Amino acid sequence: MTKPLRIGIAGLGTVGASLARLLQTKAGSILHRAGRPIEVVAVSARDRAKDRGFDAGAMEWHDDPVTLAAQADIDGFVELIGGADGPALECVTAALKRGIPVVTANKALLAHHGVDLARLAAANGTEVLYEAAVAGGIPIIKTMRESLSGNDVTRVYGILNGTCNYMLTRMEREGLSFDVCLKDAQDLGYAEADPTFDIGGFDAAHKLAILTSLAFGTEIDSGSIYIEGIERVTSEDIAAAKDLGYTIKLLAVAQLTDTGIEQRVHPALIPAAAAMAQVSGVTNAVAVDTDLLGSIMLAGPGAGGDATASAVLSDIMDLATGVVLPTLGIPVDKLKPYTRARMRAHEGGYYIRLSVHDRVGAIAAIATRMAQNEISLESIVQRRSSGHGDKAIATVILVTHETTESAVRAALLSISEDGHLAGEAQMLRIEQLD
Amino acid sequence: MTKPLRIGIAGLGTVGASLARLLQTKAGSILHRAGRPIEVVAVSARDRAKDRGFDAGAMEWHDDPVTLAAQADIDGFVELIGGADGPALECVTAALKRGIPVVTANKALLAHHGVDLARLAAANGTEVLYEAAVAGGIPIIKTMRESLSGNDVTRVYGILNGTCNYMLTRMEREGLSFDVCLKDAQDLGYAEADPTFDIGGFDAAHKLAILTSLAFGTEIDSGSIYIEGIERVTSEDIAAAKDLGYTIKLLAVAQLTDTGIEQRVHPALIPAAAAMAQVSGVTNAVAVDTDLLGSIMLAGPGAGGDATASAVLSDIMDLATGVVLPTLGIPVDKLKPYTRARMRAHEGGYYIRLSVHDRVGAIAAIATRMAQNEISLESIVQRRSSGHGDKAIATVILVTHETTESAVRAALLSISEDGHLAGEAQMLRIEQLD
Repeated sequence: MTKPLRIGIAGLGTVGASLARLLQTKAGSILHRAGRPIEVVAVSARDRAKDRGFDAGAMEWHDDPVTLAAQADIDGFVELIGGADGPALECVTAALKRGIPVVTANKALLAHHGVDLARLAAANGTEVLYEAAVAGGIPIIKTMRESLSGNDVTRVYGILNGTCNYMLTRMEREGLSFDVCLKDAQDLGYAEADPTFDIGGFDAAHKLAILTSLAFGTEIDSGSIYIEGIERVTSEDIAAAKDLGYTIKLLAVAQLTDTGIEQRVHPALIPAAAAMAQVSGVTNAVAVDTDLLGSIMLAGPGAGGDATASAVLSDIMDLATGVVLPTLGIPVDKLKPYTRARMRAHEGGYYIRLSVHDRVGAIAAIATRMAQNEISLESIVQRRSSGHGDKAIATVILVTHETTESAVRAALLSISEDGHLAGEAQMLRIEQLD
Repeated sequence: MTKPLRIGIAGLGTVGASLARLLQTKAGSILHRAGRPIEVVAVSARDRAKDRGFDAGAMEWHDDPVTLAAQADIDGFVELIGGADGPALECVTAALKRGIPVVTANKALLAHHGVDLARLAAANGTEVLYEAAVAGGIPIIKTMRESLSGNDVTRVYGILNGTCNYMLTRMEREGLSFDVCLKDAQDLGYAEADPTFDIGGFDAAHKLAILTSLAFGTEIDSGSIYIEGIERVTSEDIAAAKDLGYTIKLLAVAQLTDTGIEQRVHPALIPAAAAMAQVSGVTNAVAVDTDLLGSIMLAGPGAGGDATASAVLSDIMDLATGVVLPTLGIPVDKLKPYTRARMRAHEGGYYIRLSVHDRVGAIAAIATRMAQNEISLESIVQRRSSGHGDKAIATVILVTHETTESAVRAALLSISEDGHLAGEAQMLRIEQLD
């Protein structure tokens, strides 16, 4: 096994450049661990002249990543271009058609085309590896594909977006507003100029779609995810949650229910004493509940050039062994169709914050509407009033025992129709962790 | 690859029986994931008649595990007997000599004979797998052998003993004494009748010895571990630590220093806001600090029949692929000798609790001794006095800034020689987590 593993890298941004550097600077220890040298023999990037901190002298340069994938003399193809379609999809397809295994960090590609790519890989006797696509440096893909074999998963959930977690952590610790935290996240490079993809929950949803497939042996269905971002979480919610013994996190959850699988991304209250509640800043975490293990949790860096390159490198090391595992954990023809559980059937506790016209009987009417929908309340707190007389507005915070999403939505609709609300209701789900 | 993987299991206690059951009840999903059936064709246990919940009808029974390992027609040998020497060592040796890969949950065996077994495995073109030997159901061995390739580790640490963590958690949450918690742990089956191996830190030390080798590419040296158990931790220490913003955990730490590698197991104060501080009860956790990843943490069940069987099963699934990796992550002839850093050179903060004769000038004298040893104090608190007049005894709690173990020990010796102490000093290390 001393024959080198020859790889081609398409995309030399932060991660690609870091990977190429590592393969040169750590060649010795990589050889010990992989059992054979790993050589970058071909690369593709837009700017050929740029100094990226590694010696590209002996590498074949391609202007077109698809040409690299289709023609270079390589044993593995590393796709670090990004994007669900276009060149990324084309070059990955080209490599797989030649039976060349693909390593990618591209969550959007997998969320949208994962099953097709897994099928193409299998048909050509190869596989796609994607440790870096979910939760960056955390080895959750290997854990789910290899370590949890034999476990029946009941739920997988986690903090999968560093931008949101950074913002929520600062809002909680410093009492800052959403807008101030967003601005800081943008200044620090944690959030894009258009932050919608992160704070809207879409980035976490892409990652969740992949985890769901691995957890339940189902086809990837990123179109069936209930998605709510953190835009409507206020510092008032965070403070109220803290008083109640909870922390607010943007959670991505896939959970087996009687009627199918729930896939949901939304801000959630989790117990402040849970280990995941301490996962702060840009750190990510993933937990898996199974029949054999109870619960395991992995936490670590969700992004960053070196951390992501480390994950890509671990996939490349796996290529060096020559083993081909099913891309999505089980053979692609054994994947079950994804069966969506209706979000309205979701069961759990709820945190509800209402702005209420402060009139005699308002609280009683609200409590009655809850009771009519068979919602049992754990607590009800009137926090303060603003304004005077007819203009007085009170903040009422309700925490429910376990109920259903449809009951809560029906109750809130009735309360709104009763004319008690001075503004839109805030409703956040409480996630039970063990 | 539809040829079955034939395995032999020596030892049918809780874990072995659970494993054999899983291989029968989950045969379908295991086939999907492993790509081939996994069949238990031979077993060895003392009591042949006992009902263990699986169908042993078609299995070859051996009274002697060594005969099984030496003669059965198997592709993999699973050792679940336990013990550093004796039958466990003999049967593992016999299997490896035949070139048959070994899966074991036996931490003592690896801590004492790991390098020899790795050498024997390599000489016969095979390997030893041992995911279940460290931290039960947490996939830390796979993570370190495979996912962290290319990372330079600077520290690995964790909560590796569930018995101690259960006791410390209850002492903290309920203010119970050490003795009460030990009794409860014994009643619940978390602690042995002779609990020394757990509460003395020896079990955690075995696991640490293995992690150290994987982290730093060194030979296993379980004889060079500094070990302190939790026997001297009092509820007073736990309460004082809590006031100071810390939680006390039995930590196992291996850390690279300028003079070598520190391997140490001892109760330590860790920041209460760290995720690891929330790892409670019998749950284990391991964190790894590296150059590329910063820090990752894995938490989950450290023991239990099903969780351990799950880890053993993941190793067996790896056997099904036919890949042989170096047992200790790198080829055994590339392992460096272990270089021990002197514990007296350990650098860190310290928590010190003194019972002091409450006389004029005592605190000043203590502070002076600290200063003479160039120890800078973060805080000094006199907590309460008992007794009257000449018999009055005060509790003084000191927290130091970063200093060395030798300075602290020298200062405590001087303070003791000065005649200020009414009892033995308590000294606990503070572990910085990021």
